Amino acid sequence: MPNSLKLKSQHLCFGGTVAYYSHQSSTCHSEMNFAVYLPPQAQTQAVPILYYLSGLTCSEENFTVKAGAQRYAAEYGIMLVIPDTSPRQTGIPEEEASWDLGSGAGFYVDATIAPWQQYYQMYSYVTKELPALIAANFTVNIHKQGIFGHSMGGHGALICALKNPTQYLSVSAFAPICAPRSCPWGEKAFTAYLGTDREQWRAYDASELIKTQQLNYPILIDQGTADPFLKQQQLLPEVFESACQQVGQPLQLRYQEGYDHSYFTIATFMADHFRYHSTYLCQ
Amino acid sequence: MPNSLKLKSQHLCFGGTVAYYSHQSSTCHSEMNFAVYLPPQAQTQAVPILYYLSGLTCSEENFTVKAGAQRYAAEYGIMLVIPDTSPRQTGIPEEEASWDLGSGAGFYVDATIAPWQQYYQMYSYVTKELPALIAANFTVNIHKQGIFGHSMGGHGALICALKNPTQYLSVSAFAPICAPRSCPWGEKAFTAYLGTDREQWRAYDASELIKTQQLNYPILIDQGTADPFLKQQQLLPEVFESACQQVGQPLQLRYQEGYDHSYFTIATFMADHFRYHSTYLCQ
Repeated sequence: MPNSLKLKSQHLCFGGTVAYYSHQSSTCHSEMNFAVYLPPQAQTQAVPILYYLSGLTCSEENFTVKAGAQRYAAEYGIMLVIPDTSPRQTGIPEEEASWDLGSGAGFYVDATIAPWQQYYQMYSYVTKELPALIAANFTVNIHKQGIFGHSMGGHGALICALKNPTQYLSVSAFAPICAPRSCPWGEKAFTAYLGTDREQWRAYDASELIKTQQLNYPILIDQGTADPFLKQQQLLPEVFESACQQVGQPLQLRYQEGYDHSYFTIATFMADHFRYHSTYLCQ
Repeated sequence: MPNSLKLKSQHLCFGGTVAYYSHQSSTCHSEMNFAVYLPPQAQTQAVPILYYLSGLTCSEENFTVKAGAQRYAAEYGIMLVIPDTSPRQTGIPEEEASWDLGSGAGFYVDATIAPWQQYYQMYSYVTKELPALIAANFTVNIHKQGIFGHSMGGHGALICALKNPTQYLSVSAFAPICAPRSCPWGEKAFTAYLGTDREQWRAYDASELIKTQQLNYPILIDQGTADPFLKQQQLLPEVFESACQQVGQPLQLRYQEGYDHSYFTIATFMADHFRYHSTYLCQ
């Protein structure tokens, strides 16, 4: 039973169902956790899927309880799928040593370096195993998939979309890490997971990927101006914006005055992101 | 400076501001925490106030991050005030001994029994000190106050409204403890805070208070049918409903099929509660 899901808990919400699952991942060779929101429409029809990738230190729970997204998912009839941000309890000694590497910090790459490479295959997990699992277990329209995320998960959403230009029909992000090759968080994670050859890092850097692969739909990004990580040069939206301009990729990058890096910002602009995704997923 | 507030953090949200404060309480003889949401309208006019009282184990943070209320508060122009559920770190030895007594479990009564009575004065704190503090520090319309809450905080909202029929203009609750004299949670807390004379408990039991004091506005209650505490006889909405019927108090008690005790339920019906409160607060 490769697709065997373990239901951990579920709750009615806006006429649909929030459910927390775990399963044995063949990609990450460990138990993986994810949450879903099944909108009421899923009872009678195959619904589009919107994946949400979370930021550093998060599990599948943060977005599920804080973002206020279920209201919109119920309105538009979109299923939400929220994976955890990494494998957990793999036994790797360094796994819990720091908040920005290992547990809670998978960075949505396929690690090639020991000891991470046996478990930390988050890119393949999110783009291949998880969609297949959802298709096998829920009544969904697998031809209508979008993806979005926050911070590290915004980076994840961008690279998943850019590396799979026909799999996803829409991509947006809140305060994404736009150029991980060039910021401290990305340098630390990529060195550990991918090694010291910075050429290898291009495959997981949205500001590099966009130069060779554009999308036939516009990208939406919201970035708060009071976000401390913007000032610390961890996010670098201007690098991605410049790259998009060079190749003619449509990008709506909105600087939101006074907003910070928190879920209060995400909740505020959630309606706009659903409006954007619904344009591509609900036609 | 009796009204000196310490701002701990703040975040823009839906055009307004979420802010966390602490202050030295003269009522509870300790440092108390609360959160507010100031809607955008507060920049130019005196806004109505809606107090939210949280349930067992909660702090001021649970509602603030989970309920999705800011969207509606911004829409209607209502300030939210969310006190913590008890004093903290008072030095009372039993304070942290159990999750349903002491820290996180103030039960919105004025304790009369040692060692609690020196600090656990939540009824007076919520109905007197906190409103005065809000009036002194924010641009509000103190004549337009409503109150609501969840579980223990639903009990708190009901008794605050019933004991102060002109101070609050509206009251609603999610899964309130409706008859604390008659349920295990209430019996434990009232015995500790008020002593073993059950006659003294009537002053803090909504199903008793309603018999002698009705409100000139209807009460709104939402109760999920899949709430485990309903089955455990901790909430007893039928006792309150019966008492309201006896005295002719208008009550809209809605049983919500399949919903549980979580914030997913609260978020689902938040819009209805704001619509109800706005009828009385925003005229």
